[in-house]
Amino acid sequence: MNTGFNHIVWKNNTLYLLDQRKLPLHEEMVECKTVEAVIEAIKCMVVRGAPAIGIVAAYAAVISVNSYLDESESNREIEWREAIATDLDQIEQARPTAVNLMWAVNEMRQLLISVEAKDACNRAHELAVKIHREDIESNTRMAEMACELFADSEGAAFSVITHCNTGSLATGGYGTALGVIRKAWERKLIDQVYADETRPWLQGARLTAWELQRDGVPVTLNADGAAAWLMAEKNIRWAIVGADRITANGDVANKIGTYALAIQARYHGVKFMVVAPSSTIDMQLASGKDIEIEMRTEHELTQFTGHRVAPEGIDVINPVFDVTPATLIDAIVTDKGVVLNPDENSMAALFGESEQD
Amino acid sequence: MNTGFNHIVWKNNTLYLLDQRKLPLHEEMVECKTVEAVIEAIKCMVVRGAPAIGIVAAYAAVISVNSYLDESESNREIEWREAIATDLDQIEQARPTAVNLMWAVNEMRQLLISVEAKDACNRAHELAVKIHREDIESNTRMAEMACELFADSEGAAFSVITHCNTGSLATGGYGTALGVIRKAWERKLIDQVYADETRPWLQGARLTAWELQRDGVPVTLNADGAAAWLMAEKNIRWAIVGADRITANGDVANKIGTYALAIQARYHGVKFMVVAPSSTIDMQLASGKDIEIEMRTEHELTQFTGHRVAPEGIDVINPVFDVTPATLIDAIVTDKGVVLNPDENSMAALFGESEQD
Repeated sequence: MNTGFNHIVWKNNTLYLLDQRKLPLHEEMVECKTVEAVIEAIKCMVVRGAPAIGIVAAYAAVISVNSYLDESESNREIEWREAIATDLDQIEQARPTAVNLMWAVNEMRQLLISVEAKDACNRAHELAVKIHREDIESNTRMAEMACELFADSEGAAFSVITHCNTGSLATGGYGTALGVIRKAWERKLIDQVYADETRPWLQGARLTAWELQRDGVPVTLNADGAAAWLMAEKNIRWAIVGADRITANGDVANKIGTYALAIQARYHGVKFMVVAPSSTIDMQLASGKDIEIEMRTEHELTQFTGHRVAPEGIDVINPVFDVTPATLIDAIVTDKGVVLNPDENSMAALFGESEQD
Repeated sequence: MNTGFNHIVWKNNTLYLLDQRKLPLHEEMVECKTVEAVIEAIKCMVVRGAPAIGIVAAYAAVISVNSYLDESESNREIEWREAIATDLDQIEQARPTAVNLMWAVNEMRQLLISVEAKDACNRAHELAVKIHREDIESNTRMAEMACELFADSEGAAFSVITHCNTGSLATGGYGTALGVIRKAWERKLIDQVYADETRPWLQGARLTAWELQRDGVPVTLNADGAAAWLMAEKNIRWAIVGADRITANGDVANKIGTYALAIQARYHGVKFMVVAPSSTIDMQLASGKDIEIEMRTEHELTQFTGHRVAPEGIDVINPVFDVTPATLIDAIVTDKGVVLNPDENSMAALFGESEQD
């Protein structure tokens, strides 16, 4: 389970984040001593991946609590709650799509409603560590459950394809879709991973390839546009991806290109699996139609490592996410269980009650 | 019809090619005085696009003829035919997939079987110019025929999506799929073009965006992985692409990602059109299964403008083309006519006899 590196490190009241923008060439940690620094790190994608962002947001809250409270100031009852609440609002807005971010911030809000000033620093820190630890545990549990779905492959190892990065780097330290792939490789269920390079940010080329290579999992990099050809030519049985948000009917918002991959998978009879912690599930949204799609800068398409590749003044559309309808998904694997052929009913059966608390 | 630039220029027995690797930043012509220089220009993609490669191959043959024959040497009857035949074999192997290349070389072979030494230079030059001119004429004719297929759109302008570059730069000077788009824009049939950036070589970002912007056609650039999302969200009615080779059953080899786009189009009820000169059609091949897929260097995925983006030593699969089965294609538009819902029979009806000559 140890993947050999920690990309989210809390030490001496400071958050250190592996700068994912510089991988795979450089392994550098970014030091975040303020809430603003963490928000900036999320915004400019030092750290990315919905679960990782949630964990980092929790640590940002700890920084906020620490900055307004220490033992000498435990009497400022009203002001610190307001100040931290303002910070939490800011943290929550660092990225619009990741529901884990909102979930982690809400966990902190709940804690801070009732906690006493003298306990706040310790309790906030405990909660952040718990969120971080539980993410890793939940990833491992999901990987176990997913591997059971491969049981019907009759013993012969097969290939899988994945999109974006859903590994250690996107989570607390093991991975959602990539956690499943790690576990399936350990168990010799799969023999080859194809990694979409994942334009425009190249999470596949830069991060997934780096992680799997580091773990000794056989990985081959391909252009996103080659996925359909690979499905037709190679022994690919499953496409396995993560999620940024899952709605009450089982629709999945994830990295742009996921929807295309799901359509191609269906066409080829390749099964499609979404792996995400239950914090990704938003039972308040009826369907993917209710998800606002985040647009990012045109520079991600018009420039490359500082070099211009498209003509000046060209119009660009750069959605970061798309929505894969539940009808294209064979299995949603979460820490609370697996939903096969997701729809309103099967989702409600697993997530309905707990979300109505 | 004038698109404002000539990217294939023949002058003083020398071929000048616009260096497409440097677009859109620099507009530089590469001078080719030898057959080897032309072959190298094709191999390293100074010029690309199946019809353009065919035309350039024809001019390479002219260079070969000129190099072995001039008026003072008209008596070396046997040697020059052998020497040129050797050059033609070399030219033919510059790229493996483009059937136009073989077609153009064969046209030259036919000419050189019977031509007399004293006429060879002029006749070869005439043939190259004819191939070049007829390509432009055929593009215009195809654009006319394709626009008739849009007639059922009931007057309201719609959007289209295209892949790779099939414009002036890929042809003699007007374009296949992009010729259709130019004509449809002139006639106000379409109001918006979405251009896949087309990884790994970014023909869409670098070339299609440049050409359409230059012509004042509204073009928006998107990541290849965003095409499915665009089809779901925008008023896209047709996907329009070119072809590198079309087999007897209507299967189409074209830039990697075309097959994926066709699957996505079918899923969304977007119609799929392939536009290619009849020289692209290879009735000798029964189906796309018989087409060998060219693989290109891993550097196209692991490096970018000299910067490494994937880890050292990573395994890469980089097919340049894929095969779109005829069942996913609504119309193949050629200079000899349109084949709707292509299959063995409808293809044979239009191309059977002429190919059996």
